[in-house]
Amino acid sequence: MDKTRIQVFKIGGNVVDNPEKLEKFAADFAAVKGPKVLIHGGGAIASQMQKKLGFSPVMIEGRRVTDADTLRIVTMVYAGWCNKSIVALLQRNGCNAIGLSGADGAVIKAVKRPPVRLASTGEDIDYGYVGDLSPENIDAGFILRLMDMELTPVFCAITCTADGQLLNTNADTVASAVAMCLASEAAVDLVFCFEKDGVLADKDDDSSLIERIDHEGFERLKAEGVVADGMLPKLENAFRAIGGGVSQVLIKNSDNVGNSRQTTILWQ
Amino acid sequence: MDKTRIQVFKIGGNVVDNPEKLEKFAADFAAVKGPKVLIHGGGAIASQMQKKLGFSPVMIEGRRVTDADTLRIVTMVYAGWCNKSIVALLQRNGCNAIGLSGADGAVIKAVKRPPVRLASTGEDIDYGYVGDLSPENIDAGFILRLMDMELTPVFCAITCTADGQLLNTNADTVASAVAMCLASEAAVDLVFCFEKDGVLADKDDDSSLIERIDHEGFERLKAEGVVADGMLPKLENAFRAIGGGVSQVLIKNSDNVGNSRQTTILWQ
Repeated sequence: MDKTRIQVFKIGGNVVDNPEKLEKFAADFAAVKGPKVLIHGGGAIASQMQKKLGFSPVMIEGRRVTDADTLRIVTMVYAGWCNKSIVALLQRNGCNAIGLSGADGAVIKAVKRPPVRLASTGEDIDYGYVGDLSPENIDAGFILRLMDMELTPVFCAITCTADGQLLNTNADTVASAVAMCLASEAAVDLVFCFEKDGVLADKDDDSSLIERIDHEGFERLKAEGVVADGMLPKLENAFRAIGGGVSQVLIKNSDNVGNSRQTTILWQ
Repeated sequence: MDKTRIQVFKIGGNVVDNPEKLEKFAADFAAVKGPKVLIHGGGAIASQMQKKLGFSPVMIEGRRVTDADTLRIVTMVYAGWCNKSIVALLQRNGCNAIGLSGADGAVIKAVKRPPVRLASTGEDIDYGYVGDLSPENIDAGFILRLMDMELTPVFCAITCTADGQLLNTNADTVASAVAMCLASEAAVDLVFCFEKDGVLADKDDDSSLIERIDHEGFERLKAEGVVADGMLPKLENAFRAIGGGVSQVLIKNSDNVGNSRQTTILWQ
């Protein structure tokens, strides 16, 4: 397989938990030519499962506090139901997918996050079994060997320490790190798929799509408050990936994967 | 890696759900030399999870009736929590494991079981999303390629149809079929690990271990009623594997994997 260009896609829990959206995405993703990787979230489903099992999800600044029970639940949901449902759906669409956590083949070795001092309150927060990682902790050679077997790796955001502790990890972070680790081997596009067409100048107006943003433009949009809330960490993550060697980052609607219009392209 | 002899191990839910037993087993399994495969169950944990989520497990003649909710739960438990916990534990012990369902790499293509007429009542039972498989439906080449990458495949008993339907499958059946499919490529030992030292002449006397049983001996033990209940399908399965080319089947205690004594060896 020609691996001069690799596309790394990321879908969030809102796609994973919506059968119609997921089926549309899976068909389009299966049709994407060339080597590719998929990273998926599943946070909304994990929160539902926590509640059904009598636990209350605890989120601090958008990140899930992960005690032993929560780790068990997110591992069940992300690595079990979400990952295998997606792999099966891709198989149905003729894409030979293989589901992976970071533990499998020791492909992603994360570290357990030490307690973090929150800027907002000065409080020290222990997020529990939560993983941090950097591109050097990912075995790019392993991913490329799977591609040589004509396989499409599908990662859930469960990772593992070098000494075998499973960890809950942010799926955007996994996607960026996988894209960056592959960037030394190939030209890599990182494609974040979500429920909007891209970055909007006015978040309530779907026609206000910003088609291209470079690093300078990002700083301006941030200063103007156009990029805020959930979009801010997403774009910071994206520009970190570009800084780490990824060719470009595309932000688009999960319904539009087969369509090159309606996309925000981020570049250096 | 020399693949002239491959060992296929199976552990049941009683080992998977017992942290002490699982840790002991994982350390011993990691130390086993040469290419090997692990297949695990998890039935007891799945039943607990069904109850916690407000469902009642329905078992008919020892097999779980699997509706859509049950499929979701068993996929979460087997492919998620159990599979990734075992993979992580093996990584901790220096064994480079990779967790797989039948959907991953389309390695096991099962068929959905048609309604079955029960011999006992004459009733037609639809087991729902339950998979049947035979060794020809398993991609031995894929398993061998993983072994060439120095990986140890760890299978949960979730399989998948050719058109992408996940199915709940009996772990003993998966273990036998994997062993048989590899038998055309190598000398294969199939090792069933459970809570007893092997087949006992008197099930209440642990010292009554039967060390060797051939096919004729099995027929005699069956006629005498020494082999009955849960042991009967296990041994039928084992002799089917031997009939299908597996060199020998070992039945032993999960605590004794590092120990060649205290084992029942089945052969032609």
